[in-house]
Amino acid sequence: MKHDKVMNIAKKRGFLWSSFEIYSGVAGFFDYGPLGAILKNNIMSKWRDFYVVGEGFYEIESPTIMPEEALKASGHVDHFTDPMTECKDCVDVYRADHIIEEVLDADVEGLENQKLSEIISENQIRCPKCGGHLTHVWSYNLMFQTLIGAKGKKTGYMRPETAQGIFIPFKRLLRFFRNKLPFGVVQLGKAYRNEISPRQGVIRLREFTQAEAEIFVNPQDKSHPRFSKISSEILNLYSSNSQINKTESLKVTAQEALDQNIVASEMLIYQLYLAQKFLRELGIPDNALRFRQHLPTEMAHYAIDCWDVEVYLDHYGWIEIIGIADRTDYDLKSHSTYSKEDLRVFIEYPEPKNIKKSIAKANMKTFGPAFKQDAPVLIKALEETDASIIQTSFNEKGYFEIELETTHRILPTHVKFEEIEEVIRGEKVFPHVIEPSFGIDRIVYSVLIHSFYDKDDTNYFKLAKDIAPVQATVLPLMNKKELVDVAIDIRENLRENGFIAEYDSSGTIGRRYARADEIGVPYAITVDYESIEDQTVTIRNRDNSQQSRIAISDISNILESLMNSKIKFEDL
Amino acid sequence: MKHDKVMNIAKKRGFLWSSFEIYSGVAGFFDYGPLGAILKNNIMSKWRDFYVVGEGFYEIESPTIMPEEALKASGHVDHFTDPMTECKDCVDVYRADHIIEEVLDADVEGLENQKLSEIISENQIRCPKCGGHLTHVWSYNLMFQTLIGAKGKKTGYMRPETAQGIFIPFKRLLRFFRNKLPFGVVQLGKAYRNEISPRQGVIRLREFTQAEAEIFVNPQDKSHPRFSKISSEILNLYSSNSQINKTESLKVTAQEALDQNIVASEMLIYQLYLAQKFLRELGIPDNALRFRQHLPTEMAHYAIDCWDVEVYLDHYGWIEIIGIADRTDYDLKSHSTYSKEDLRVFIEYPEPKNIKKSIAKANMKTFGPAFKQDAPVLIKALEETDASIIQTSFNEKGYFEIELETTHRILPTHVKFEEIEEVIRGEKVFPHVIEPSFGIDRIVYSVLIHSFYDKDDTNYFKLAKDIAPVQATVLPLMNKKELVDVAIDIRENLRENGFIAEYDSSGTIGRRYARADEIGVPYAITVDYESIEDQTVTIRNRDNSQQSRIAISDISNILESLMNSKIKFEDL
Repeated sequence: MKHDKVMNIAKKRGFLWSSFEIYSGVAGFFDYGPLGAILKNNIMSKWRDFYVVGEGFYEIESPTIMPEEALKASGHVDHFTDPMTECKDCVDVYRADHIIEEVLDADVEGLENQKLSEIISENQIRCPKCGGHLTHVWSYNLMFQTLIGAKGKKTGYMRPETAQGIFIPFKRLLRFFRNKLPFGVVQLGKAYRNEISPRQGVIRLREFTQAEAEIFVNPQDKSHPRFSKISSEILNLYSSNSQINKTESLKVTAQEALDQNIVASEMLIYQLYLAQKFLRELGIPDNALRFRQHLPTEMAHYAIDCWDVEVYLDHYGWIEIIGIADRTDYDLKSHSTYSKEDLRVFIEYPEPKNIKKSIAKANMKTFGPAFKQDAPVLIKALEETDASIIQTSFNEKGYFEIELETTHRILPTHVKFEEIEEVIRGEKVFPHVIEPSFGIDRIVYSVLIHSFYDKDDTNYFKLAKDIAPVQATVLPLMNKKELVDVAIDIRENLRENGFIAEYDSSGTIGRRYARADEIGVPYAITVDYESIEDQTVTIRNRDNSQQSRIAISDISNILESLMNSKIKFEDL
Repeated sequence: MKHDKVMNIAKKRGFLWSSFEIYSGVAGFFDYGPLGAILKNNIMSKWRDFYVVGEGFYEIESPTIMPEEALKASGHVDHFTDPMTECKDCVDVYRADHIIEEVLDADVEGLENQKLSEIISENQIRCPKCGGHLTHVWSYNLMFQTLIGAKGKKTGYMRPETAQGIFIPFKRLLRFFRNKLPFGVVQLGKAYRNEISPRQGVIRLREFTQAEAEIFVNPQDKSHPRFSKISSEILNLYSSNSQINKTESLKVTAQEALDQNIVASEMLIYQLYLAQKFLRELGIPDNALRFRQHLPTEMAHYAIDCWDVEVYLDHYGWIEIIGIADRTDYDLKSHSTYSKEDLRVFIEYPEPKNIKKSIAKANMKTFGPAFKQDAPVLIKALEETDASIIQTSFNEKGYFEIELETTHRILPTHVKFEEIEEVIRGEKVFPHVIEPSFGIDRIVYSVLIHSFYDKDDTNYFKLAKDIAPVQATVLPLMNKKELVDVAIDIRENLRENGFIAEYDSSGTIGRRYARADEIGVPYAITVDYESIEDQTVTIRNRDNSQQSRIAISDISNILESLMNSKIKFEDL
């Protein structure tokens, strides 16, 4: 199994291992070792190249600890739950839906707790460990809870997603973007999910890294300015229709996806395309990549359209590594309601509108005498009130009341209605949000799996040059001082030029090549006796073992040109 | 006050603001806005250039949630506390040492709770809010606590420092570095401290970012291979002696610091130098920078020598932004004890040692008959036991006992002692740890403060070019289509070449320059009517408003050369 080999090398060579091993480990936590951390950083840095530099989105960083109010508003306090059941005998706990799925091989995702309890009872499903009876199903909140401060005991949670940290300061962000839609804000960072019993390695972590973009758009305009540039790109779409009808996924162009209404908007399609481009450049092959649309039953109630970017993994099957959704105005609206802050954006109409409206004015003959010194304030209140409300009150009650310090009863005789014309330049609306949400740990794992080659007893990761943790290794052909000195100088020089370069002098040259190949080092530089005579070295290409002789003084420049593909190895 | 102006611009323009503002905020949490997040990332990226690329240390990433056992071992469960007291009337809580320091203007840091209680009572210190009596002082643990998993309720904490995540997988790291000292491992990430009542803005956060390096060294060899290269660098040392004798800090060379025993080792001095180089390149001026040695009373009991790198800040005075310590073998030893894992490293002697030792061998004439079938096992046990223990037992008791299934009593007549010679190549020891620990948030704040210029009504951040959030802004001289189109193309082209470039067309050109200056954009590129004729633009230098005319096709290359100082603006 590829998975086992990869994880074995990952652990041995310093990519990934279970955290807290010396304390017997804690499920759902992984360390990125010396090579894994660089790989992950390189992937995140590439993500920033795509989304921050390329798309012009801006990154922010908000806290991982969040106060309860904010997560009440987002819905996580009430709804970020898994259905749980416990064995009455051995008191072990299980995800109710998983335990049912294992026994009945049926999809019960999204069913109510009551329904799940019934299925367990009807099918006499028992504890898989001890055969004991299972309790009723209840909702278990997946957030890690904590208390903030020494006083007052304020409840906080570790954030379940980075997105909320972008919605909360929306007003400041809107100001940064000078009150104009669309704009995109991203966040890369830790998110947390206190899984009941995580058993899928890096695929299901209790602490994981997300890269999320929230693109705030005019609800009336989900076009994308660069759509025409990508309209003929092919996407592998596994639509909800295909899933329901059990047909194959469709390879269609972006334009077809739009024309045939498979994906809801240009904005969403553009995001699918961008995610695909990103994954391709990371080395995920097209045949292991598809976009799966959420079924109507699985989609969040507020969403218009959701697509999971899935990668095929030997060990796990098709796994979601990115989610791309149109979340509508759900989040901003909720935060607006809970915080009482106006999170709407003023959107200008293409053309100002002239509208006629009726306003209530005081009939000065009767109004002054009736209300005396209160008249000016009442007149103002009257003019600011929607005339139809006043009219309705007159019709229903015969009067309209305004509360000042006391209640003033306005009669129809006090008022005359006038038609006025008003120019309206636009209106305040809640933006809609298009969200690509990347699971970075799953992507790192997918990259390792799909870059892994296993041929003739040698294993290696054919990592894309720009994400390989170590760019070059410098090897003296033999462990002799005159070669070692040159090799170490070259290594120092490469580091001064910003490359992660290693040095290795132990074992045969073949073994050292294999050791470097194993961790995906794209280039090996060998110092031999010729090097001392004519100041040249050999440079070796990981992917085909091809070698070429280059001047020591050119190494940095050549490496840089190879890394950013300005030259080809064959042309050296 | 510089602080107020800076924080005002920081909030307005998108560097920094208090988190969760729409939910009335939570003390001790800050958001990095669109410009702040890039600035912070750029500073961290520069840190990696120094420590990962430059020094050859490797980065790892471990979870922010840690199980209790690990933090029990590190001492944090028992000792990561602040002395707390509560008002018996208004039940507000205070840091006992702070409240005493405010009233008595005396330094009581590090005193026992009992002593603090006495001082409060003797000096009749009362609640600063309501005048009520204060309770006895107790220790309040500063870690955020949580529960991991649905079952068993395993206690976890948000990590109080990133360092512990490096010590725990030490065995894997040692293997990665092929069992050879010295080596360095770094971690950049969030750490948490549930402050009682944080009131110092970004200086005292409950969630903050650290960059820590743990350099594992042979306890017998704290020399640094590159010390000779930095021996004449000047350091501004405020030693514990200077502090005790109330004399000025000393400006001495690295060599003098070593020769005069002001700093404990080459390794430590090198780290002081490196931190200084880093801060200088970030724009912290020398006169606002000093190294303050911990007083013997303030230093952790296990440490050999500790230095705070302090920066002078108008609003706060001298503030620690980096700590550099020799933590000895404390951490690895503790984790070894608690986890029962051997975290020692085998260190070869410079020369193998021949030692003579005595071993106990069976006297076969008597041993076989006495112990029959048990003899082989007993003989092995005998030979593996230190001969002196057996000899002592003979001397004191007349026999030596070995426990197998039953107890066997060995008599002097069963044994003969032989002298043998053994070659010992080295021994296992716990490495010592040299730790530079950077507070990234405080550094970001210090950089903002020290780069801030305020002249003739214009404010601006003179941020170093390599950390400025936006590298260039492109401005059409007037808001006309023919100029706008060219400007937008230039902006797109810059982004494709990896620059963060902005576009601004609103307001007078002077106002747009000022707007870009304010956030520290190093270069402004202006498109005018000449641009359309001859394909040139002006480029303007933020720091002196100097302008030069360059070809549109050269913009990217020139910008890159300016950014990495390959050319000077004056030479354009």
